[in-house]
Amino acid sequence: MSDFSISELQKLHDLAFNVARIARTYMREDQLRRRKVALATRKKLNSVDLVTAADEGVEKTIRDSILKEYPNHAFIGEESYSAGEEKRFLLKEGPTWIVDPIDGTVNMVHMFPVTAISIGFCLDSIPTVGVVCTLYSAIRHPQGGAWLSELGPDGPSTPLPLVSTPPPLPIDAPKGCLFFGEYGKDRRDHPQSNLTKKAANFVNMATEIGGRGGKGGMVHGIRSLGSSTMDMVYVASGQGDIMFEAGCWEWDVCAGIAILLQTGGIVVGSNPPAGLGDTDPIPMANLGGGRYLAIRGCSEDAGGRSARVQQEALVREVWKRTERLDYQRPV
Amino acid sequence: MSDFSISELQKLHDLAFNVARIARTYMREDQLRRRKVALATRKKLNSVDLVTAADEGVEKTIRDSILKEYPNHAFIGEESYSAGEEKRFLLKEGPTWIVDPIDGTVNMVHMFPVTAISIGFCLDSIPTVGVVCTLYSAIRHPQGGAWLSELGPDGPSTPLPLVSTPPPLPIDAPKGCLFFGEYGKDRRDHPQSNLTKKAANFVNMATEIGGRGGKGGMVHGIRSLGSSTMDMVYVASGQGDIMFEAGCWEWDVCAGIAILLQTGGIVVGSNPPAGLGDTDPIPMANLGGGRYLAIRGCSEDAGGRSARVQQEALVREVWKRTERLDYQRPV
Repeated sequence: MSDFSISELQKLHDLAFNVARIARTYMREDQLRRRKVALATRKKLNSVDLVTAADEGVEKTIRDSILKEYPNHAFIGEESYSAGEEKRFLLKEGPTWIVDPIDGTVNMVHMFPVTAISIGFCLDSIPTVGVVCTLYSAIRHPQGGAWLSELGPDGPSTPLPLVSTPPPLPIDAPKGCLFFGEYGKDRRDHPQSNLTKKAANFVNMATEIGGRGGKGGMVHGIRSLGSSTMDMVYVASGQGDIMFEAGCWEWDVCAGIAILLQTGGIVVGSNPPAGLGDTDPIPMANLGGGRYLAIRGCSEDAGGRSARVQQEALVREVWKRTERLDYQRPV
Repeated sequence: MSDFSISELQKLHDLAFNVARIARTYMREDQLRRRKVALATRKKLNSVDLVTAADEGVEKTIRDSILKEYPNHAFIGEESYSAGEEKRFLLKEGPTWIVDPIDGTVNMVHMFPVTAISIGFCLDSIPTVGVVCTLYSAIRHPQGGAWLSELGPDGPSTPLPLVSTPPPLPIDAPKGCLFFGEYGKDRRDHPQSNLTKKAANFVNMATEIGGRGGKGGMVHGIRSLGSSTMDMVYVASGQGDIMFEAGCWEWDVCAGIAILLQTGGIVVGSNPPAGLGDTDPIPMANLGGGRYLAIRGCSEDAGGRSARVQQEALVREVWKRTERLDYQRPV
């Protein structure tokens, strides 16, 4: 990160912001057109894994704009990755853009208005600049920031998290938390399938305290939006508390993680690392690991516990209530 | 309904639209204020049943504006109902306003931006005018209509459903459908609890065809927004296919049902009525019944099946895959 000054990062941020804005216009026009005509889609994995011409068109727009300016940067985009033969984790140490042209394709097909353009930029494998939808963005840097730009790039923006001094986590969290998670695309039915375990995890988090053999978490609510990007962003902005997701990809979460880190949130693996002791510090999630548990930023609590102590305590409470998910990256 | 001409209904619609707009401004200011300060809430039923000062303030604003214009109409609002002793179903035959000042209170507390102001108007116990959020509205009448007014009351509006000739339902529905449902506030843990059954219903709908003992529905996605009002509205507008909810109230769905009916959708009970034969016509949901299954409007399909035939077939497919829920109205 030493090679990039705050002004260089700002330039990257502004490029991403403007590209996302152009892509958003493209998507918006596509949605308006579709109010009149049906949509052509083709399937990727199964009947719920869809790609539309818009995905591919938006990715090309973003890729061309970025590589024109930064021809030596690496670029990982969902659609070109999916179309390629190489399925291993591709992130290298150098400057790398990680882009999901349209997160929430199923939503877009149904015209349900939760979709995101997600443009992330990594240094040393850590998300450092993120722009989602042109609304939410961040530069991870001591002189950086995170913003909600509801009125477009030229209007005033609100610093994130939205509550400028974010409250401590609830004292008996996960009770009282807003929890985001998705059923996902793996729909196989057997007792140890990811779908079966995800559903059990959600019920555990929702059930009254003491229920489900002690796993009841009594969260305020379970939200499933059909966009892992937006799940992450809402936690990053403090509009949610917990994001728990497995089976998604680095382009789904890279930009959101840049925002999360800058707002004081943490992201770890949705499963505990093997051999982690009860008091060991919890390492950050592997960006290519496909399993993420994010906790929002917060202030020191009344008992003097730091944000990090509260967040790690909540991570362990979520781990206790959730079963290990087994999504594997194709090799 | 014979007593109300289309111009009278239009007048009611415009009043509701303007009141909702004022209430929305009030809510928006509240949300902006809360970016700086924490929120005072008190609990209604348990730790997830919250009421804020904003709910009560918004309801009073709406009630006063409506009763000033129509002092002889009945008015049912969530907050005044909840505060009262009388818990029976209150809807009479006469002109009745049914209002939820803020649907999605848990979301509002967390600043998660899915909330709705819902203003419905019933004649003969059937939702006839509905306004949600100032964006979505309808007049149920042959000369009426339904609209999405994204640019405010003075801008152009888009007729609903959003796709002006809504496509037929998927031929093997529920496969391919977007399904909306909520975990709700009843969090008790036992094998026959509503939470346990709701979770099983969601997994059934999500699982591959043939899974879960034949109950797998392979829907495109399960969405939980934390607002039954918005769940209903997205199905009414054709931005979703199926809304399945139990444990909510008439003010959560009244305005949305007015929009749904005008766009050609249907709403029935989420449980099959006792004694209904396989080919009997399916009656409309009881507005006060607290259990709703809504299907979006659609066109005749390639096999010549009418919208109603497709919708009733899908209702029976959903009933096969879902367990009976037992929410009771307090008496």
